Amino acid sequence: MPKDMTQTPAIFERRESEARSYCRSMPSTFATARGSELFDDSGNRWIDFLAGCSSLNYGHNDPDMKAALIDHIAADGIAHGLDFHTTAKADFLEAFESYILSPRGMDHRVMFTGPTGANAVEAAMKIARKVTGRTNIIAFTNGFHGVTAGALAATGNGYHRGGAGMALNGVTRMPFDGYFGDAADSADFLKAMLSDKSGGVDAPAAILLETVQGEGGLNVASPAWVQRIAKLARDHGALLIIDDIQAGCGRCGTFFSFEEMGVTPDIVTMAKSVSGFGLPMAMVLVRPDHDVFGPAEHNGTFRGNTHAFVTARVAIEKFWADGTFQAELGRKAELIRAGLTELADMVPGARLKGRGLMQGVDVGSGELAGAICSRAFENGLVIETSGNEDQVVKVLAPLTTPKATFAKGFDILLAAARDVLAAPTKIAAE
Amino acid sequence: MPKDMTQTPAIFERRESEARSYCRSMPSTFATARGSELFDDSGNRWIDFLAGCSSLNYGHNDPDMKAALIDHIAADGIAHGLDFHTTAKADFLEAFESYILSPRGMDHRVMFTGPTGANAVEAAMKIARKVTGRTNIIAFTNGFHGVTAGALAATGNGYHRGGAGMALNGVTRMPFDGYFGDAADSADFLKAMLSDKSGGVDAPAAILLETVQGEGGLNVASPAWVQRIAKLARDHGALLIIDDIQAGCGRCGTFFSFEEMGVTPDIVTMAKSVSGFGLPMAMVLVRPDHDVFGPAEHNGTFRGNTHAFVTARVAIEKFWADGTFQAELGRKAELIRAGLTELADMVPGARLKGRGLMQGVDVGSGELAGAICSRAFENGLVIETSGNEDQVVKVLAPLTTPKATFAKGFDILLAAARDVLAAPTKIAAE
Amino acid sequence: MPKDMTQTPAIFERRESEARSYCRSMPSTFATARGSELFDDSGNRWIDFLAGCSSLNYGHNDPDMKAALIDHIAADGIAHGLDFHTTAKADFLEAFESYILSPRGMDHRVMFTGPTGANAVEAAMKIARKVTGRTNIIAFTNGFHGVTAGALAATGNGYHRGGAGMALNGVTRMPFDGYFGDAADSADFLKAMLSDKSGGVDAPAAILLETVQGEGGLNVASPAWVQRIAKLARDHGALLIIDDIQAGCGRCGTFFSFEEMGVTPDIVTMAKSVSGFGLPMAMVLVRPDHDVFGPAEHNGTFRGNTHAFVTARVAIEKFWADGTFQAELGRKAELIRAGLTELADMVPGARLKGRGLMQGVDVGSGELAGAICSRAFENGLVIETSGNEDQVVKVLAPLTTPKATFAKGFDILLAAARDVLAAPTKIAAE
Amino acid sequence: MPKDMTQTPAIFERRESEARSYCRSMPSTFATARGSELFDDSGNRWIDFLAGCSSLNYGHNDPDMKAALIDHIAADGIAHGLDFHTTAKADFLEAFESYILSPRGMDHRVMFTGPTGANAVEAAMKIARKVTGRTNIIAFTNGFHGVTAGALAATGNGYHRGGAGMALNGVTRMPFDGYFGDAADSADFLKAMLSDKSGGVDAPAAILLETVQGEGGLNVASPAWVQRIAKLARDHGALLIIDDIQAGCGRCGTFFSFEEMGVTPDIVTMAKSVSGFGLPMAMVLVRPDHDVFGPAEHNGTFRGNTHAFVTARVAIEKFWADGTFQAELGRKAELIRAGLTELADMVPGARLKGRGLMQGVDVGSGELAGAICSRAFENGLVIETSGNEDQVVKVLAPLTTPKATFAKGFDILLAAARDVLAAPTKIAAE
Repeated sequence: MPKDMTQTPAIFERRESEARSYCRSMPSTFATARGSELFDDSGNRWIDFLAGCSSLNYGHNDPDMKAALIDHIAADGIAHGLDFHTTAKADFLEAFESYILSPRGMDHRVMFTGPTGANAVEAAMKIARKVTGRTNIIAFTNGFHGVTAGALAATGNGYHRGGAGMALNGVTRMPFDGYFGDAADSADFLKAMLSDKSGGVDAPAAILLETVQGEGGLNVASPAWVQRIAKLARDHGALLIIDDIQAGCGRCGTFFSFEEMGVTPDIVTMAKSVSGFGLPMAMVLVRPDHDVFGPAEHNGTFRGNTHAFVTARVAIEKFWADGTFQAELGRKAELIRAGLTELADMVPGARLKGRGLMQGVDVGSGELAGAICSRAFENGLVIETSGNEDQVVKVLAPLTTPKATFAKGFDILLAAARDVLAAPTKIAAE
Repeated sequence: MPKDMTQTPAIFERRESEARSYCRSMPSTFATARGSELFDDSGNRWIDFLAGCSSLNYGHNDPDMKAALIDHIAADGIAHGLDFHTTAKADFLEAFESYILSPRGMDHRVMFTGPTGANAVEAAMKIARKVTGRTNIIAFTNGFHGVTAGALAATGNGYHRGGAGMALNGVTRMPFDGYFGDAADSADFLKAMLSDKSGGVDAPAAILLETVQGEGGLNVASPAWVQRIAKLARDHGALLIIDDIQAGCGRCGTFFSFEEMGVTPDIVTMAKSVSGFGLPMAMVLVRPDHDVFGPAEHNGTFRGNTHAFVTARVAIEKFWADGTFQAELGRKAELIRAGLTELADMVPGARLKGRGLMQGVDVGSGELAGAICSRAFENGLVIETSGNEDQVVKVLAPLTTPKATFAKGFDILLAAARDVLAAPTKIAAE
Repeated sequence: MPKDMTQTPAIFERRESEARSYCRSMPSTFATARGSELFDDSGNRWIDFLAGCSSLNYGHNDPDMKAALIDHIAADGIAHGLDFHTTAKADFLEAFESYILSPRGMDHRVMFTGPTGANAVEAAMKIARKVTGRTNIIAFTNGFHGVTAGALAATGNGYHRGGAGMALNGVTRMPFDGYFGDAADSADFLKAMLSDKSGGVDAPAAILLETVQGEGGLNVASPAWVQRIAKLARDHGALLIIDDIQAGCGRCGTFFSFEEMGVTPDIVTMAKSVSGFGLPMAMVLVRPDHDVFGPAEHNGTFRGNTHAFVTARVAIEKFWADGTFQAELGRKAELIRAGLTELADMVPGARLKGRGLMQGVDVGSGELAGAICSRAFENGLVIETSGNEDQVVKVLAPLTTPKATFAKGFDILLAAARDVLAAPTKIAAE
Repeated sequence: MPKDMTQTPAIFERRESEARSYCRSMPSTFATARGSELFDDSGNRWIDFLAGCSSLNYGHNDPDMKAALIDHIAADGIAHGLDFHTTAKADFLEAFESYILSPRGMDHRVMFTGPTGANAVEAAMKIARKVTGRTNIIAFTNGFHGVTAGALAATGNGYHRGGAGMALNGVTRMPFDGYFGDAADSADFLKAMLSDKSGGVDAPAAILLETVQGEGGLNVASPAWVQRIAKLARDHGALLIIDDIQAGCGRCGTFFSFEEMGVTPDIVTMAKSVSGFGLPMAMVLVRPDHDVFGPAEHNGTFRGNTHAFVTARVAIEKFWADGTFQAELGRKAELIRAGLTELADMVPGARLKGRGLMQGVDVGSGELAGAICSRAFENGLVIETSGNEDQVVKVLAPLTTPKATFAKGFDILLAAARDVLAAPTKIAAE
């Protein structure tokens, strides 16, 4: 990559915390973005296969959302509305009801939490505990639900857990679908533990899962497994919480990741792409029976990010009012699979992971995956790894990415892999 | 208030969670806002003495921030940048260093956390625990720090704590300044407890406090008390965390609430008005020695809300580049004190609370305070209560509120109080 | 059983807590006991196949211990010695070193804890946490380690856990050997979880296990499994704690239950039969490197029960100075197996459980097991159930029980089973 | 002290854990004891002003208890009876009801817990949590309640708390009576905290206190304060637990330490001297309404130490059947006060502490107190320190100590103080 692309402005070294991260492996200073492309302050261009970790499912600066947002601001539309009724919120809720909830037969209420996924997860966990009067929540290996203390207890990642500096309580860890390979069904294990009066697992308030574990390495739960988990939750008086923060908003090919699985979660957490524009917004969908919080019992100053309501409404109306967009997603998923199959074929032992537009390749080591992504970045592609060893090269492109851009992106990715595989010693040297 | 002002759109009843709150006592549907005024969708106007709970210290839709934000969006500026370097972030950091940190001799690093105050508090608590290898954090009666599990442990409010549905650990509660009235200094008590080898209070990782407790009822910590607490923290190997989320950004008459107190906190949490425009943004200021998080050890998708960086930069440059704005704040604080003294004089036993532009009157009961605010809302003033019994009528107007608007607002407030006090039976009837 | 055998003295109804339990299913008032026999206050006799839950491995009132204890008391020997050096303690330690530790190549130190098994477990868990600086302790399904808060966290039994009235933290539950049947090895699962950086199981301070789960239903860990667990502990920097409270002191055919397994636990907890006479005594054996408690850091008034030291010394010298006693245990174990096989053959689907002199039969339901034990009690045999459904009829006779007494006891047991199986409706009626 | 008195048998160095403690400052090897005197294996004699930390209130080897116990053992009386009904238990309960509970109008039930004070405290805390459905228990500065995880959370001592190796939850610490000196009443503070809706102290399950803090330094709660605490407990729906483990059984001049205070605790914990002979025994007294444990919900193998029942019955019948013994206690308390006043007069700034036969002198430093006790031991007196700095020389002689022995003991103590005070540099040198 050109020298000037990597020159980090001194202000970041001087004043930004060491906690910063993406900017370390991709040290450009970005300025603008359109669709699936990012530009730095020198006009260098990158194709974006990261999409704000699935927060930009509709691409950067979608023109319709952009226009609506500028209109709103220009007209002195409310920017910050606490949890007042606002016209922007009403319009979003109307659209969300009409095009998302009602067509799917979902009677859920919408709770606007503080605008982070972790906050939505915290609220969901609290609801489940309040509803059931129980403390224990079942979460899964390689699950990622955020890093605030309540959500972090449910997160599997040891590095993040270590950041707590204290014991994280209230969660029991269980093996995700496929954890035993073919040897056994992990749902059998959970069933045995919950049914065993001396199993030592306290009766759960909820079972919390992602249908595809984005940070955990694109591990996919099968519909049959999710159905079994849903039944176990029901049988044991627990709520089923599906964390659709990364896998939802079309990422898996349908609006919700679970909608073709034959289950109705008691609670759904959403964030990331729900605003459509990358603006902070999060929400909890909760069935009316479980909508037990009193006024402001879970609160937060930014729970009404009105700008996000404006763009979120446009996103729903533009992409989900009919089936056109969803139909495209299926085709794009195939395209991604084809590209990744090529990559997988290059690496002995590599495995395809994920589903929909949330796919990747487990290349066997974090070192290799990192080297590929790093090389790709030098050549104009933003792409990241995931998994417990960072061993999965993960494609999280905007859902709106044109075929041609996908093709270009995969060209860069495959070339990067070729380069890296041709010079394996370089990896070790790094 | 006119009928149409209170007609809640059915969509909220149908689909918004029962957790909604401000919209219950102030059930209008707001559409636009400018400066210190809010307008509903029928054009009715309210003076805003709440300012998004101190998130709108520079008023609604400040024209300079608005222009900069529209320009940014129109030019396809980054909306969502994870924690990439962006030009918007660099510009904000430069401004924040030049006009805030450097002039105050602060060497703190800036950590952008998930964009909620609670998230900043969670990060601060984690840092303190990681730095010290200890778990226990001292927090105070009537402190409010957010409702996610880690922060909620530090929050005193029993209603919010009850929402956790589980035990909240890792925090020891101590009496805030003035808790014993004149009988004793609560810092003496904390000192005794920490020094007593059998006091049963584990060595603290941090002492966490607000210098003015906004939600807790505008309780003010004296500089002498804060200094004693800072010394206790130092003597016992603990970090001093000042939560300046509500009291900072000029609210107390200086940028930081503590800057005339002679203490340098190890960590400062900021949110609410830091974006200047009401957009979600939060940050932790941490001294370089304590900047111990590894890359992404505390992370979050929206930790780089680029729109907020744009407006936050303008806010700093416009209001804090020289001393003009701060000088005005002193005059406005006096004006508020005068208005509130009138109110206090009307209610037997009432007490003035708070300092700077964060003042109120303890009218002795939540019922009376609520009735006054409710009546004020009917007459065009948005104002709220705070305190452990909701007994404090609290003025949190934008810092930019013109004198004339203050005057009008106080007219409404005092008239409301007169009405309510003239018809006390009405309160009971409600 | 004769009327007078079941007449509970009114004082128990009037003044003893509802927490009393064995006296409910076996409501006689016992007065004296010798060897393997118990007598009530009317002279009725029972054979004892419970042995104080393995606290009376050498039978009731062993004549040599009895004589030594009477001599000690008559000579005004110390009864209560805090943790002073006493001649009685020195003599016990000499015997324990000479006949138990040294011959087995064990360099462990002896810590006398409060005289309950739970207290020993609490001390062991604390040691492991202090040694490693970690909190998490791995315990297993159906493990039983006591009911004080620390130990109870490690106990699997849901009824006992429920008694805590609070969340029990610091323990991760894992499946015991055989939990997956033949489908998989539970040690593989533990290994996978501990090795997975996002497995969500925090690095353990210790792995805590019983080699035979007495209360849990006589589940037996194989030597190979225990070795794998020991290796996992070592590989992950955790201590191996073997809780030999019920399975130790000869119960499994050797002094320690694990001594033929090829592992050296870092910590061993002992209680129950360690005094030999049924007197309260407990201890923790800990390798010198891990003997990290400071003076009295874990203390307790009764940690020097001197009467127990007197009888414990006699027990060691009488039964473990040479191999005679141990050789007999092997023969008795076969005798028990033969008796239980007869029982198992009577019940379709029944399974033999346990090993050594700690065996039983899983009869498939707690109702049936309870009915058999109840009927046996009526006919002069004290015997109890165990297991997560109380489905295991468990023989825990004194190790010193003569062959003839075993024969009589099994006659009663088998007759009881025949009676109950012949009248199945009676079970339901109870 | 003679050389041979201090020669520790090598077996202790070799095999006893470093956790041993009393034997370090008093390194003799004790063999026998009678009344208020201890003898080592060489026949050296010590007067005992420690009495097993109040476990030997009736002295060593009381002849009547001794005779009864020998008779019981000789007749093959039950030694270990789980929680079966036994004649020994019935006889104890009858005596305890007749001479202790009924005369004091107490309707409490007796729960025999594992035979340690900590176990009784754990049971009491669990009962309170089960009764109220709450978790939080209020305990006090300098309280000592044992070192198992549940009880340790309530214990103030930092050294013991540190031994946990983990966070101790479920307890809120409050200042004991007198903690503010004359500045304020700590009951006012507790009342304020509990009544403050944002006080951050969760509604308590129980308030747990000692009326005299034995380990904490002989701090005395006044009857008025205890009454206020009892009322606070009642007003806030919490149970009052009085931990009478050290202060009960006559130590304060009446059987229970609280019986002249005008309060009826919901729960009383007892251990130490309840067996009368120093044998391990503990119990929880609980009002019938709160006797909520199910059968064995809190259990423990040694919960029926039958030998202890035998001696405990004799203790009750011999000392508490009429008022003679109690009358003597008053006279002895005065005698102790006189002796300690002499000691206090020798040390500038010294303060008398405690009440009844549980008195001492705060000599201002742990170094000085330790030196005095150490010198006293050399001259034939066993005596210990207590307090958060070990600064209190504490007299806990058997209640049965004859006047002459008291006189001799005080002679040694005062001489020791004189020696030490005459040679202050020696202290520093140690």
